[in-house]
Amino acid sequence: MRVRKLSLTLAAAAAVAAAGMVVAQDQEPIQPIAPPAQINLGLVELGKKLYFDPRLSKSGFISCNSCHNLSMGGTDNIPTSIGDKWQQGPINAPTVLNSSLNVAQFWDGRAADLKEQAGGPIANPGEMAFSHTLAIDMLQSIPAYQREFKQNFGKDKIDIDQVTLAIAEFEKTLVTPNSRFDQWLLGRTDALTAQELAGYKLFKESGCIACHNGPAVGGNAFHKMGVVQPYKATSAAEGRSAVTGQEIDRFTFKVPTLRNVELTYPYFHDGAANTLTEAVDVMGRLQLGKHFTPDENAKIVAFLKTLTGDQPAFQLPMLPPSSDATPRPNPFK
Amino acid sequence: MRVRKLSLTLAAAAAVAAAGMVVAQDQEPIQPIAPPAQINLGLVELGKKLYFDPRLSKSGFISCNSCHNLSMGGTDNIPTSIGDKWQQGPINAPTVLNSSLNVAQFWDGRAADLKEQAGGPIANPGEMAFSHTLAIDMLQSIPAYQREFKQNFGKDKIDIDQVTLAIAEFEKTLVTPNSRFDQWLLGRTDALTAQELAGYKLFKESGCIACHNGPAVGGNAFHKMGVVQPYKATSAAEGRSAVTGQEIDRFTFKVPTLRNVELTYPYFHDGAANTLTEAVDVMGRLQLGKHFTPDENAKIVAFLKTLTGDQPAFQLPMLPPSSDATPRPNPFK
Repeated sequence: MRVRKLSLTLAAAAAVAAAGMVVAQDQEPIQPIAPPAQINLGLVELGKKLYFDPRLSKSGFISCNSCHNLSMGGTDNIPTSIGDKWQQGPINAPTVLNSSLNVAQFWDGRAADLKEQAGGPIANPGEMAFSHTLAIDMLQSIPAYQREFKQNFGKDKIDIDQVTLAIAEFEKTLVTPNSRFDQWLLGRTDALTAQELAGYKLFKESGCIACHNGPAVGGNAFHKMGVVQPYKATSAAEGRSAVTGQEIDRFTFKVPTLRNVELTYPYFHDGAANTLTEAVDVMGRLQLGKHFTPDENAKIVAFLKTLTGDQPAFQLPMLPPSSDATPRPNPFK
Repeated sequence: MRVRKLSLTLAAAAAVAAAGMVVAQDQEPIQPIAPPAQINLGLVELGKKLYFDPRLSKSGFISCNSCHNLSMGGTDNIPTSIGDKWQQGPINAPTVLNSSLNVAQFWDGRAADLKEQAGGPIANPGEMAFSHTLAIDMLQSIPAYQREFKQNFGKDKIDIDQVTLAIAEFEKTLVTPNSRFDQWLLGRTDALTAQELAGYKLFKESGCIACHNGPAVGGNAFHKMGVVQPYKATSAAEGRSAVTGQEIDRFTFKVPTLRNVELTYPYFHDGAANTLTEAVDVMGRLQLGKHFTPDENAKIVAFLKTLTGDQPAFQLPMLPPSSDATPRPNPFK
């Protein structure tokens, strides 16, 4: 028994040595995703309903989940989203998964946190095309919502702060722990293949890690898109300068999280890259001045696919029915 | 103990007598919804994914669940549905709940069963605007779908029959047993209030029951819309005559189920009635030549709300990600 244990340890050490890694996974520039803590479950249940409720849009057809679809990595998997009356959105919908880890929300960071973000699309004429006042009128007309808001907030009147707070609380639960990469970080040395480990080594040594680091493997800083070579975007979005007014921030975007990146195609703020292979190639050339060989590219892609974690698991929520007093949406007016 | 039991029985009998009912609930023209039987769970899981997968549409945005939303009574709660590029649908989306009990599918019964129905919207240019060939190409390009189809059908090639069979099998599970009305039918005499029982009595005595009967309280026959007075539809749909070519079937539609009718607003094939009160009033006048008083109307509405059953409860499905070979939808082309 003792011999067997020893040989396993030696084998693990050999595998680690072969991949050129040290075992000190707690020294890595990427940290495991932590399960959510300090969560108010009453608010989560309310926020979950609101997240799935298309009555928060003018048409009665578009919910948060339409563009941040929790069956599809928290995205819509199309280059730019579809808004009210099929308007084309200006930018790729970022994943809602692990968005609580972001330094700020939206690609340009114009919302400080999830609560501030949640109010945006509801009132954006190109997205849900509603207004906060109309959204509150709708909710206030539905007895089961009235009761659930009152239970959570202790007030008779629903307001937009309650709505966005509940949605944000639900979104805080949308973290994806337990990816194979996290299992490896936490000491399960056989969780990654040699190719995946080699990809991680390349990811670090090539400089990808300079922007994509921390628990979300991104999401924690703003960087210019097109450092070594300019990026020819198919979108007119100008990035962080739209928020700061500073020319130096032009074409600077929040670094996207690479968690669940296997699920969140297409890539970049304009959704122009369809595959991870393409995204890694473009990132290498434009941000790092590196031309990855097909073999190097495949290794990095293999590593990136180890970042897919446990997806949020919950029952499809049932929405309380409208009352006779609820204004009825008509999407064709 | 014996005395108490006796007094309860007397109280129940008195309540029943007050509502003018007899206890022989197994003689009623409405039968309880039975839980689904002979279900293939492997097919259900596959069909559930397909039901939620917007990649079955040209845009990558519209799934079965978009218009038959299982968070909202299996409908979209708008007068007529939104199709590809925001096209206005010609008719109100009928609920998918308990649709396995329908004599045929669609308002005009043009599909014999759920399997035949499921292929329709995918290829309808005004709805999902895809084609069966493109849908199969998409599915075949996704390894996890390939495996799941092979596990269920034992073949290497996916075909449209497999797709529609799986969706239909999932839809067979979407029944809603255990409504308060069913509890009453099954002998729980206190499951309904006196007002609800009075509403049921009116529903039967006024003649509503002539069309709305059986386990689904409808769904089992075609009848003309506008028997006593003509119905002025906001839709151009001509009903069953479009299928049979018979003038006598003009403006004849499948009688909708009244199960979960509290959730499936707006009402009628054109979605023109926003509330149950309005629907009961119109039905009384046009189909039966009856003007229900506000009190009678309220009683019938109270009865109708007892038909809301247990909604299908399951985890939001996770869709397998596209591969590099999967054609990418672009909804704006």
